[in-house]
Amino acid sequence: MSRTIPCATTIAEIRATLGQSRDRGATVGLVPTMGALHEGHLSLIRAARAENDVVVVSIFVNPTQFGPNEDLKHYPRDLAGDRALSAEAGADVIFNPPEEEMYPGTFSTWVEVEGLTDGLCGRSRPGHFRGMCTVVTKLFNICQPDRAYFGEKDAQQLAVIARMARNLDMAVQIVPCPTVREPDGLAMSSRNARLAPEQRAQAPALYEALNAARVLVGAGQRSTAVLDRAMRSILAEASLGEIDYLEIVGADDLVPVPTIAGECLIAMAVRFGPVRLIDNIRVQG
Amino acid sequence: MSRTIPCATTIAEIRATLGQSRDRGATVGLVPTMGALHEGHLSLIRAARAENDVVVVSIFVNPTQFGPNEDLKHYPRDLAGDRALSAEAGADVIFNPPEEEMYPGTFSTWVEVEGLTDGLCGRSRPGHFRGMCTVVTKLFNICQPDRAYFGEKDAQQLAVIARMARNLDMAVQIVPCPTVREPDGLAMSSRNARLAPEQRAQAPALYEALNAARVLVGAGQRSTAVLDRAMRSILAEASLGEIDYLEIVGADDLVPVPTIAGECLIAMAVRFGPVRLIDNIRVQG
Repeated sequence: MSRTIPCATTIAEIRATLGQSRDRGATVGLVPTMGALHEGHLSLIRAARAENDVVVVSIFVNPTQFGPNEDLKHYPRDLAGDRALSAEAGADVIFNPPEEEMYPGTFSTWVEVEGLTDGLCGRSRPGHFRGMCTVVTKLFNICQPDRAYFGEKDAQQLAVIARMARNLDMAVQIVPCPTVREPDGLAMSSRNARLAPEQRAQAPALYEALNAARVLVGAGQRSTAVLDRAMRSILAEASLGEIDYLEIVGADDLVPVPTIAGECLIAMAVRFGPVRLIDNIRVQG
Repeated sequence: MSRTIPCATTIAEIRATLGQSRDRGATVGLVPTMGALHEGHLSLIRAARAENDVVVVSIFVNPTQFGPNEDLKHYPRDLAGDRALSAEAGADVIFNPPEEEMYPGTFSTWVEVEGLTDGLCGRSRPGHFRGMCTVVTKLFNICQPDRAYFGEKDAQQLAVIARMARNLDMAVQIVPCPTVREPDGLAMSSRNARLAPEQRAQAPALYEALNAARVLVGAGQRSTAVLDRAMRSILAEASLGEIDYLEIVGADDLVPVPTIAGECLIAMAVRFGPVRLIDNIRVQG
């Protein structure tokens, strides 16, 4: 039988809980999520469990990071399931605020990272990173964690949050965690459940393309044009998918590079109908 | 003989100092300043002294809140004098970082409050409040104060910071402190020292106009058009001054009101040559 962990729904409540822990010298690890937890999230919770005295998992489907035509309404929600999975993975407390607790009527303050948010996912999701940075800042201020855990699958999100935390001198360590994959290579995502069977069957093409690029780089290939062509030919096999972007950028500044030099990020987004999947790997030139 | 207080110039240094205090349960009060301290600042330091175990005064002329045609270069600086005055008023430590400590090369993150920053000073100082909110967020994250002290002279700044702190769930209490005035009514400001003698002689007109409005409101006048005309006729006497704005707005949303109802802010900015002075009062309808 799994243990039941408390679930705070107000800011005052989670502050009181974590404040008591901090007062007795405990360290706090935060895993911010939008719920619909899968193995990827659970790996973050386990990492937080190993490094902190108290682990809080926030579950909040943040409306300000969804565009007007995006899937906010269809975003999967399962609080009871998430709570049980979080407990099993080692979380101590859930923070699950209603929308009006996080965004009261007079809300008008935004945190924005410029430059890093222009390309990749930022191009097709205007406002997404502004909403994400704002809610993460709020969660940091509410929970005051010593460490916060983010998956490398959302590479741009991770780069943006790391830059934001550094630029604003936030007293939190940003801990990146490796992407967790299905046996066929598809990166775990809450959105995978919305793929039709034929789409799901083609979705591993993303990681296949990335792996092909990794092999080419390992064999000495440095031209991003060559890598791009190789990946597009593999993605073309996934006839139900439509490439949103496929880019090779510097790992720190996310600016496209003509040749692989230093640490680079190869990142892509592919749409299968209404479901947009992202994936990436890092390569070294 | 005045005591000498330490002056931290790096983020690591001030964090270590304040962290030790917090570890033994001390409360921290922050007074953010741009230096050139006058009685107004000293009243903030004294208020902080009365309410906290440790008082830190930050002295940082924040470049990102000055516009390209503003007086960043001419802003008065006197660290030794400020340090002595701060000590005398009860401060425990100064934080005086160089510009590159606060804004390293890859700085690209901004905190912005929308709406509240459009009118009043925001209209003639685009980007000012974004820079101010960003540096105050950084100072809050660096010093993690229990309370932070701001003067009511900068009424819009105070409203913007209060909104920002509330919206972003910052764990700090924003404490407003009354405007401190010269014997002739002129609000204390680091910029007053730059007025030529004839300008200085006319500068009390701002407060005279505000006081006239207060008297009229006290006598039952509720029309902002009438108050506006009365104030402009007084300001016209200050022939060397040019009105930048003169507005009567709701105290919370800073939106212009046609009649005085509830708590309202009467705020103005007047230019004497290159020196821009601001002042305000609150009235109740």
